[in-house]
Amino acid sequence: MAVTIKDIARLAGVSTATVSKVLNRKDSVIGEETRQKVLSLARELNYTPNSLARSLVTRKSHVIGIIVPDILNPYFTELVRACDDAARLRGYTTLVCNSEGIAEIETAHLASFGGHRVDGILLAASDVIPDTELLDALCIPVVCMDREIGPVARLVTTVDTDYRSGAFQATRHLIEKGHTRIAFLSGAPHRSNTQIRLSGYKDALAQAGIAFDPELIRCKEFQHRFGHQATLDLLKRTDFTAICCMNDMLAIGAMVALRERGRRVPEDCAVIGFDNIYLSPLLEHPLSTVDRRIAHSARVATTALIDFLDDPNRKVEAITIMPTVVSRTTT
Amino acid sequence: MAVTIKDIARLAGVSTATVSKVLNRKDSVIGEETRQKVLSLARELNYTPNSLARSLVTRKSHVIGIIVPDILNPYFTELVRACDDAARLRGYTTLVCNSEGIAEIETAHLASFGGHRVDGILLAASDVIPDTELLDALCIPVVCMDREIGPVARLVTTVDTDYRSGAFQATRHLIEKGHTRIAFLSGAPHRSNTQIRLSGYKDALAQAGIAFDPELIRCKEFQHRFGHQATLDLLKRTDFTAICCMNDMLAIGAMVALRERGRRVPEDCAVIGFDNIYLSPLLEHPLSTVDRRIAHSARVATTALIDFLDDPNRKVEAITIMPTVVSRTTT
Repeated sequence: MAVTIKDIARLAGVSTATVSKVLNRKDSVIGEETRQKVLSLARELNYTPNSLARSLVTRKSHVIGIIVPDILNPYFTELVRACDDAARLRGYTTLVCNSEGIAEIETAHLASFGGHRVDGILLAASDVIPDTELLDALCIPVVCMDREIGPVARLVTTVDTDYRSGAFQATRHLIEKGHTRIAFLSGAPHRSNTQIRLSGYKDALAQAGIAFDPELIRCKEFQHRFGHQATLDLLKRTDFTAICCMNDMLAIGAMVALRERGRRVPEDCAVIGFDNIYLSPLLEHPLSTVDRRIAHSARVATTALIDFLDDPNRKVEAITIMPTVVSRTTT
Repeated sequence: MAVTIKDIARLAGVSTATVSKVLNRKDSVIGEETRQKVLSLARELNYTPNSLARSLVTRKSHVIGIIVPDILNPYFTELVRACDDAARLRGYTTLVCNSEGIAEIETAHLASFGGHRVDGILLAASDVIPDTELLDALCIPVVCMDREIGPVARLVTTVDTDYRSGAFQATRHLIEKGHTRIAFLSGAPHRSNTQIRLSGYKDALAQAGIAFDPELIRCKEFQHRFGHQATLDLLKRTDFTAICCMNDMLAIGAMVALRERGRRVPEDCAVIGFDNIYLSPLLEHPLSTVDRRIAHSARVATTALIDFLDDPNRKVEAITIMPTVVSRTTT
């Protein structure tokens, strides 16, 4: 039988409130002798707090599960950190899982969220379509950020960035700087998060009367390695004076490739990114980019989820975050 | 009364093994009709998996709590990601908390680990001395990485980087490149993780017959902002041809300041970092640094903790990671 706070109170000859205060470190008003007595009894009796048992009764764990493709990508690092900050302000902790953008790994994480009885789930941007059947079976409220999802019973809301507008603004920014041969780097070509941005790029070109050239398009993945490899390939095959990168890591990889080939940024080739990760202004050429307000959107998503957990009748509208261009030194 | 797997099996007219397979997505051999029946019953009955109840009985949550000062610091991002990978390979998930390097926040996180009944704790490097009294009361096995800790009953082991050797090697590397006026940037001056590195720096100078000059020392915090500010201050007050930075973020900040003041790296001023975060080779001047083998040490620490959880009688020695200099373009 597990030791309870009552057992400790009885043995120490104090109230349960006193024991609770000491064990929760709210013990500034408790005498040192009492404090030591309670702590040493807790140690002796191998007491562990009872919130696990309590969460079985209340069915609340105060844990939010978050799935990101890879927390090492600075965009997701910032997102997770801001979600965690917002969650803690409301008394929740977060359980963060890396899916590598692979459906099977994400599904395994979702199943484990059931096991850990998380109260809510935040699904961050990914190329993967989530397992809606499992989500329905789990019956845990979900907020989706920048990703496609089929119909799910417990979808609280979606928080989306206006990618089309972001890509349009980035391309128009380069056109305004005099560029007409603008390469475009993005993630997996058939996914909507690339297709939507590509349409923004095309619209900006069309508006300026610049013909679209498929030779300038390179879409595969959102990794700096691909930005490096695609830029080297572009330099071999075609002419261009600017690169419009659909995340900042692609832009960082592109700038490494340009340096390796002796091209100066922005004199020989301008580069713009997308995300505005905290590293962008720290680079040796502080990166012009599209600010998608990472921390803000993380807070919005987390708050919407917890508001719903507090009051499931609350109606939550879909939320769209409007990005804007930040011009630094690379354009 | 909570719905169990048995209830679903009875109502669906199948075995509990079949229900378990479907709910755990190991259902490749189960007919589609049966699968749908089980899933729809699980939905209807609002079934949630029972591992929380199970963990009350077995007293195992298979969750490891990790405390870092700030996951936004790329060193800790990589550390957390590698700990998480190592934990998952052994069937554990991780609960990551940011302490901001503040004792009170860390203590609150530790107390919450008790509430969530984490099986083990990884305490990553921090200037803060952990609350050993609370750790003793929690009675949860702990592995400490690169930080000081008083006597704790359930300390499994410590994983330390040989900071002295790393700082010695970095300084010697700069001396070998011909530098004698070498600035030194590090974290809080009175903490051991700065003092130990400072002793390595001094030893390398002494071995080369170079006098130690306190004018060249700037110790405050491990943030890029401080690297920037300290370098601007040094440029105003004294002469130097190299900066020995005790983490890579300080080096990134220092390089921004040098660029702002028109100093070329490495021609006018060489810079070396410490950590070898994954960004170091991606910078426009790929950073020379001290490789502390972040992922390796994370795996070693996590494995030591889980080995102990599997077999508390296993003896675990203190572990020291030896760093080495990686020479890139900034020295």
